[in-house]
Amino acid sequence: MRATVMFGAGDVRIETVPDARLIEPTDALVVVTRAAICGSDLWPYQTMELSETGRRMGHEFIGVVDAVGADVRAVKVGDVVVAPFLYSDGTCVFCREGLHSSCLHGGRYGSAGVDGGQGDAVRVPQADGTLVTLPVGVDDARLPSLLTLSDVMATGHHAALAAKVGPGKTVAVVGDGAVGLCGVIAARRLGAEQIILLGRHPDRIALAKEFGATDVVSERGDAAVEQVRELTNGFGAHSVLECVGHDQSTRTALRIARPGGAVGRDGLPQEESIPLSQLTLFNNVTIGGGIAPARAYIAELLPDVLAGRIAPGRVFDRVARLDGVPDGYRAMNEREAIKVLIEF
Amino acid sequence: MRATVMFGAGDVRIETVPDARLIEPTDALVVVTRAAICGSDLWPYQTMELSETGRRMGHEFIGVVDAVGADVRAVKVGDVVVAPFLYSDGTCVFCREGLHSSCLHGGRYGSAGVDGGQGDAVRVPQADGTLVTLPVGVDDARLPSLLTLSDVMATGHHAALAAKVGPGKTVAVVGDGAVGLCGVIAARRLGAEQIILLGRHPDRIALAKEFGATDVVSERGDAAVEQVRELTNGFGAHSVLECVGHDQSTRTALRIARPGGAVGRDGLPQEESIPLSQLTLFNNVTIGGGIAPARAYIAELLPDVLAGRIAPGRVFDRVARLDGVPDGYRAMNEREAIKVLIEF
Repeated sequence: MRATVMFGAGDVRIETVPDARLIEPTDALVVVTRAAICGSDLWPYQTMELSETGRRMGHEFIGVVDAVGADVRAVKVGDVVVAPFLYSDGTCVFCREGLHSSCLHGGRYGSAGVDGGQGDAVRVPQADGTLVTLPVGVDDARLPSLLTLSDVMATGHHAALAAKVGPGKTVAVVGDGAVGLCGVIAARRLGAEQIILLGRHPDRIALAKEFGATDVVSERGDAAVEQVRELTNGFGAHSVLECVGHDQSTRTALRIARPGGAVGRDGLPQEESIPLSQLTLFNNVTIGGGIAPARAYIAELLPDVLAGRIAPGRVFDRVARLDGVPDGYRAMNEREAIKVLIEF
Repeated sequence: MRATVMFGAGDVRIETVPDARLIEPTDALVVVTRAAICGSDLWPYQTMELSETGRRMGHEFIGVVDAVGADVRAVKVGDVVVAPFLYSDGTCVFCREGLHSSCLHGGRYGSAGVDGGQGDAVRVPQADGTLVTLPVGVDDARLPSLLTLSDVMATGHHAALAAKVGPGKTVAVVGDGAVGLCGVIAARRLGAEQIILLGRHPDRIALAKEFGATDVVSERGDAAVEQVRELTNGFGAHSVLECVGHDQSTRTALRIARPGGAVGRDGLPQEESIPLSQLTLFNNVTIGGGIAPARAYIAELLPDVLAGRIAPGRVFDRVARLDGVPDGYRAMNEREAIKVLIEF
């Protein structure tokens, strides 16, 4: 079968790899019909050291179940399924608490022995705990939005929960990438009254406004902090979604939080430490979030996607076939595209 | 009148200063009957640059109202009152949210024009929003415990709330100082099932056990992390109270939190940045807390102190008169005393 393999920074190729197949009785074999390139895929794209064997890529996909192991009960051959970006057993103490990202028997696609999502098929471990059957056909118009439940929409929702978004709250979303845009959707969905997007790209800002952003701040650093304060009676935002993961964006996020407010982080921030100024301590700002337990949120978000109340699939502004994936990485890396959808 | 003045690191003196007096119509004049030395007083004691005018010290006190301004309604002459360590108006948007530490018209004792608590009397600004009348006489045996409501018990409670302590939770308290010990009281009071104290001083450990600590870890760094994991099925603690405020203790606190757990910080940590390892992000550990809104907690904690259900005053292991305050600083700084009570 064909799959996306990264051999080093900037070097993504479509390779022929061994066919995905069942190994464990808890596995399902999923033939991929839609996949995506993630913002987090750009980090190895920018920094990965040369590797002869390469690294299998992709962790967001929808597909059709082609075979199941003897112990699989929750999905069956022919089901259209979405896979959250980590697999998880659904039964361990952390999964029962809704923190599937810390599953004791979970893991990542593309790691040893597990296929990546940007390829023809994937062996999905812990299929019962991982996959969610979708009540749609393989050509449903809502598939792009359903695909975002695997990662980006779940991640925006996670940041919003960590930032304690709720009815009447003032929310700031730092970053106008796909996660930030989904953060806007999540904030509005959770009842935020004011949603301030911190971003600089006109096309993304336009989309954010359609998603519910009420204000836009395009400055950075001190000027951004000043503008957010002006928009919030001088106090800052109750809830701040940090959707960039860089040092400056994190500093900004902490500074624009209102006293007693919360900063929700997501994705896989690259910084190793964040500054906690005395101001932050005096302000009792809570910092929460991390890698989203996407599996935990699918049941909650799915009805809204199916009913069309949210359309996070609009973050996909480019569609490619598998052969076009290398150029998709380039386009996302150069900010030509927000997020690339891969059709098979 | 006499008051404690710090002139530089290690230089604390009892000086004659101008008598405290009413200035604003919202002031109350409180004659101090009990005060305390705070762990945070040790920071200037260790680092303050020489000052000719000096700095008035003290922010924890109980006293008797001696006079009130024309606008004061909530307290009257003769009331025995406790003062939280910051004054606050009780009416601003933040006070109404319970975050009195961010009061728009609040401030600190010992700042310009406001007396410190370690002296004969204090002009208390915003008396209606600040002072709480205590239903006890000036010689009540519970005064030491009531005095802790001004800061240290409220601070331990704040850390416990920020760490999301609740019934059945596993709690780790980093630090066996007065705040850590009050953190143990708070954790038990909030229903924690297991309370692990990280501390090294036998006398403090003994007290912590009386307060409800179920386990003690006296190692530091990696060894401490290992021991806490062993005590918690390998997972770490749901709730971690960081009651030291140094870099290593903060690192330890983050590392011993369970996935999905929370670290509550308190007091005035000295570090300017904390390390957020990738592990912390994968684990979705929330970091909360900061300067405690002590005023917000007095109503909740007071009945338990009055009824003797908690006795945080036991953290005072030394009593001094005002003349003995300089030696009290020395004793706390040299870890000879946990916390010094000042009787007038």
